[in-house]
Amino acid sequence: MSHVRAYAAPSARAPLERTTIERRPVGEHDVLIEIKYTGICHTDIHQARDEWGRGTFPMVPGHEIAGVVAAVGSGVTRYQVGDRVGVGCMVGSCRQCENCKKGLEVYCTGGGLVGTYGDTERYTDGAPTYGGYSTHIVVDEHFVLRIPDALSLEQAAPLLCAGITTYSPLRHWHAGPGKKIAVVGMGGLGHLGVKLAHALGAEVTVLSQSLGKKDDGLRMGADHYYATSDPGTFEALNGAFDLILCTVSAPLNVDAYLSLLRADGTLVYLGIPDEAISLGVFSLIMGRKSISGSGIGGIPETQEMLNFCAEYGIGADVEIISGDQINDAYERVLRSDVRYRFVIDNSTL
Amino acid sequence: MSHVRAYAAPSARAPLERTTIERRPVGEHDVLIEIKYTGICHTDIHQARDEWGRGTFPMVPGHEIAGVVAAVGSGVTRYQVGDRVGVGCMVGSCRQCENCKKGLEVYCTGGGLVGTYGDTERYTDGAPTYGGYSTHIVVDEHFVLRIPDALSLEQAAPLLCAGITTYSPLRHWHAGPGKKIAVVGMGGLGHLGVKLAHALGAEVTVLSQSLGKKDDGLRMGADHYYATSDPGTFEALNGAFDLILCTVSAPLNVDAYLSLLRADGTLVYLGIPDEAISLGVFSLIMGRKSISGSGIGGIPETQEMLNFCAEYGIGADVEIISGDQINDAYERVLRSDVRYRFVIDNSTL
Repeated sequence: MSHVRAYAAPSARAPLERTTIERRPVGEHDVLIEIKYTGICHTDIHQARDEWGRGTFPMVPGHEIAGVVAAVGSGVTRYQVGDRVGVGCMVGSCRQCENCKKGLEVYCTGGGLVGTYGDTERYTDGAPTYGGYSTHIVVDEHFVLRIPDALSLEQAAPLLCAGITTYSPLRHWHAGPGKKIAVVGMGGLGHLGVKLAHALGAEVTVLSQSLGKKDDGLRMGADHYYATSDPGTFEALNGAFDLILCTVSAPLNVDAYLSLLRADGTLVYLGIPDEAISLGVFSLIMGRKSISGSGIGGIPETQEMLNFCAEYGIGADVEIISGDQINDAYERVLRSDVRYRFVIDNSTL
Repeated sequence: MSHVRAYAAPSARAPLERTTIERRPVGEHDVLIEIKYTGICHTDIHQARDEWGRGTFPMVPGHEIAGVVAAVGSGVTRYQVGDRVGVGCMVGSCRQCENCKKGLEVYCTGGGLVGTYGDTERYTDGAPTYGGYSTHIVVDEHFVLRIPDALSLEQAAPLLCAGITTYSPLRHWHAGPGKKIAVVGMGGLGHLGVKLAHALGAEVTVLSQSLGKKDDGLRMGADHYYATSDPGTFEALNGAFDLILCTVSAPLNVDAYLSLLRADGTLVYLGIPDEAISLGVFSLIMGRKSISGSGIGGIPETQEMLNFCAEYGIGADVEIISGDQINDAYERVLRSDVRYRFVIDNSTL
């Protein structure tokens, strides 16, 4: 057991503050990682404020983790000290169920995935999990990813959640040459969705509330950029897309977005709106359209995504902050005032 | 132009009554069909009572039509007098758009499909369309299907809507050996869904409000039969299915049905509920599940379905009625008091 520095929310109503937490001893299959950078995901804010309930406090958020291996257990085969590695949204799963065996640990049905923070180590010692807003973390090697040399650690960190969350549905729904993809929202997820869809060879359209980030969007690879606040957009793009990735959690007019799909098109939610969604079934039947949801991605696909990003030179656009700026950064995320991901320099914690 | 006998709803609030209607002269590509049998679809009742609006009266319902070719136009190549043929839910489409060219006329985006009744001949003479509750119909050969000799005309008639509406999604979502399929509702569509899914080699479960039709369901090929009125059903079947076909229009607890799907499973609506549906996106994200809708099927697939039914000896279970029983039959359909499809003997009109 070792004590490490961290930033934690002591309760759902308090700002994050500097503290120390305990990390377990490095077990046989564990990797001890010295964390260099951690991305701030919108989910961190929801969780730190317990907006979804079930939060356990103190809470150390952070599931976009990039660092360097500092120690390995005796049974670790894939990593050695000095390796550049990452950890995403999960640090455990049953490893036995149909989905785990297929590399879809995120959809583990044998007890569910263990979240990187705010969860408990259900399959091992039952301890609470603490995330990346800390200097070190101990993780079973199965849930550790290799960060290729071509990626900087600070730009790679957000790939561990925002990157795989957009990459996985793009791959699952066959984004590529000849496919027309819309990305709803030009934030942390959206800007990576644009880069990835473009690199995959698809024709990419951004649907953002305003044209404020249009130049950025086009620079990142978007072919078209529309403001959803303009009602003409929905008329102009009727039946245009094979796939729409919804990266925003604000409520949408679902039927209006379904009207933008071609036959057999799919609207995929990557975030969870606060309210239930509602739609007319007619919008689905006329064109055999679908609504789906997709959560991060499995471990093998996360590694594939990192390798893909290295090959195509894709990283997040980041603004690096120190630990004492986390609470301010949260406020700025809520105002969409970030281009496009805050990343904590963990040496400042 | 010729006058033929028919049953029509003179207005949305009146029962159907005997009348005569006009059929256009047989054009170059037209087939004149002497209708032998016409199935009564629940949609007929919605339309005849104008429950979806937009109805035009007098209305002659009927889009499950089976008969014999009585005359053909000079340009008709696929049919000759005496052939056993059927007509389903559509008698026209643009024939030019992407979907029409793929044989998905039902999703025509070039002006939309022309419904067999209650619509207008948008691509030809602009006349109103009248359906199968009549002794004859004139249809462009493109929208005429061949009924194989192995199928009786009365059992084949309901295949033209209820059959293709269940067959198309079963094929699209790959029902077959190793797949677990649930059919929600054991009515006109549901009983054909069971027969078709079983013939395709899938493991079939019926989810019906009660166990009242359990013996029928098992006889038709269901492997399991559960009552949805029993709350234990949802617990027992958690994560069980690859595909759920919803054939009922009553409101469902969508989240509860999504919980019955495995990862990557799909809940497909085949009918349109009166109200918008509502669900939590979390139910989709946890398992990358989908909600879709599917409408009948294209012309090539409808022919494929008829050939498949002939090969496997599948027809609808029907109760044959005369024209003067149509209004009573409507009441019985609304009470679910039919096993499993009323079919009109058109010689009685």
